[in-house]
Amino acid sequence: MGNRIKLPENSFSRTLLQGGPFPDSVRRRPVGVFDSGIGGLTVFKALRALMPQENMIYFGDTAHVPYGSKSRASIARFSVNIARFLMEQDIKALVVACNTSSALAFEDIQKSVPVPVLGVIEPSVQRACASPKARRIGVIGTEATIKSQAYVLAIKTLTPKAKVFQVPCPLLAPLVEEGWWHHPVTEEVARIYLKTLQRAKVDALILGCTHYPVIKKILARVMGPRARLIDSGEETARALRNCLLNLGLDKKTGKGWSHFYVSDDPRRFLALSRRFLGDGVKNVSRKSFD
Amino acid sequence: MGNRIKLPENSFSRTLLQGGPFPDSVRRRPVGVFDSGIGGLTVFKALRALMPQENMIYFGDTAHVPYGSKSRASIARFSVNIARFLMEQDIKALVVACNTSSALAFEDIQKSVPVPVLGVIEPSVQRACASPKARRIGVIGTEATIKSQAYVLAIKTLTPKAKVFQVPCPLLAPLVEEGWWHHPVTEEVARIYLKTLQRAKVDALILGCTHYPVIKKILARVMGPRARLIDSGEETARALRNCLLNLGLDKKTGKGWSHFYVSDDPRRFLALSRRFLGDGVKNVSRKSFD
Repeated sequence: MGNRIKLPENSFSRTLLQGGPFPDSVRRRPVGVFDSGIGGLTVFKALRALMPQENMIYFGDTAHVPYGSKSRASIARFSVNIARFLMEQDIKALVVACNTSSALAFEDIQKSVPVPVLGVIEPSVQRACASPKARRIGVIGTEATIKSQAYVLAIKTLTPKAKVFQVPCPLLAPLVEEGWWHHPVTEEVARIYLKTLQRAKVDALILGCTHYPVIKKILARVMGPRARLIDSGEETARALRNCLLNLGLDKKTGKGWSHFYVSDDPRRFLALSRRFLGDGVKNVSRKSFD
Repeated sequence: MGNRIKLPENSFSRTLLQGGPFPDSVRRRPVGVFDSGIGGLTVFKALRALMPQENMIYFGDTAHVPYGSKSRASIARFSVNIARFLMEQDIKALVVACNTSSALAFEDIQKSVPVPVLGVIEPSVQRACASPKARRIGVIGTEATIKSQAYVLAIKTLTPKAKVFQVPCPLLAPLVEEGWWHHPVTEEVARIYLKTLQRAKVDALILGCTHYPVIKKILARVMGPRARLIDSGEETARALRNCLLNLGLDKKTGKGWSHFYVSDDPRRFLALSRRFLGDGVKNVSRKSFD
């Protein structure tokens, strides 16, 4: 978990260690963004909104999706393959948009690429812990994310006295992919999963899976006004902008391009992407590792 | 789809073409059974119940599960890798327990192994079409299975006048894996998905996904008494027994052993298997292809 920047060993990273500035040719390099599938488009959308000038390459591992029910070893292997592939596309920074991968494979990814790597966990934990009132924090995510204890560890590091309440919600992502975004069944499932968090009177609820911002309204209605909902995408976008600015790696002007890779046939991704991004995506290629 | 037996080209298959009989050393070889994950255990359970004397190797592709939202090309690649691996384990016949793989990759699998291959589609279609009254047949399955039209084709081949009504039910398998087998949410989701099939007054409903027999009671309640529910596992078990008997490949006596392989960490499979098989499984190994 976290945004700690690996100390790499090439001329790019030597400049990085010296704090830049980097020439325009480096600043123009794309940011890599990867997710287990389509859900990371909520993070991509937030990055695009905040940094329209940056070039971006998104990778969705649609051949292995979902990660949330798989083992650490498999998630790490899939993630490192993708990170290395994105590195070959000459990225200047990497965003691990998938919460499960951020929770279970962050250090493996960091070790495998010589550019700054940002996960989605630390930015949202920082936001959750920012308020002095935040003493009771709820976290929802996939089975693997919750089991990893990555959020608990990150929260306790920043706010040792915080009480953390976690619930795995494996049905929410399938409900989002089915398009039941305003459906009474989705609200009922959310009500069942969130019952203990409501009773625990949490001050903040971290949406620890890229699919959940899509049903934020339902989650807010179920949780009531007390709990602030924290969206990984928005927090990660701010963290990336700060990281690029601080390192002198940001692209200053122009309109950024986007390219998408998926590990399975692009057609389903193209169709579903319209639900996540309005206009949907263009420029989708296939790249598989098995 | 179907159970057509490939014409292979080695001494085993030359004997096969001549109709056996095979020596005991061949009859003792295991039957291979494969599925995208855990759901195929409903088929395995039916095979075990009917053929306790047969040795069996089950493969669950838990690194790629689910197949139902993936492309034909990926499903065929995963399936052929597994079929070849099972062939290396010296199987005498192969059951494609996964409906999605049976629908999209059956011929690729048949071409890749020199033993009889049985899918789950033709046995249930034969049962559905057996009754002269069966003129209105419902099929539920994954997105990929339904889109493939494999059931429609198989039904129309046997009963050209049949009317086929298909509905993809992508949320049912996640609900089964979450363990909500008797849950009101599962009944509500089933009610939503099956509405058009109820209105169509189908005589038979084919449960076209290995997960569905687990919630057969809910599905029967929702459909009402008119529709006969057809369980792929039971039909495939009968088809396999006939196939082995007819080819002189059946093992006659003793108690069969079982071995399980999964492509991801075995722990989750072990835990979930208890829900599907009561006692759960033993002898689980890991074998991955990527």
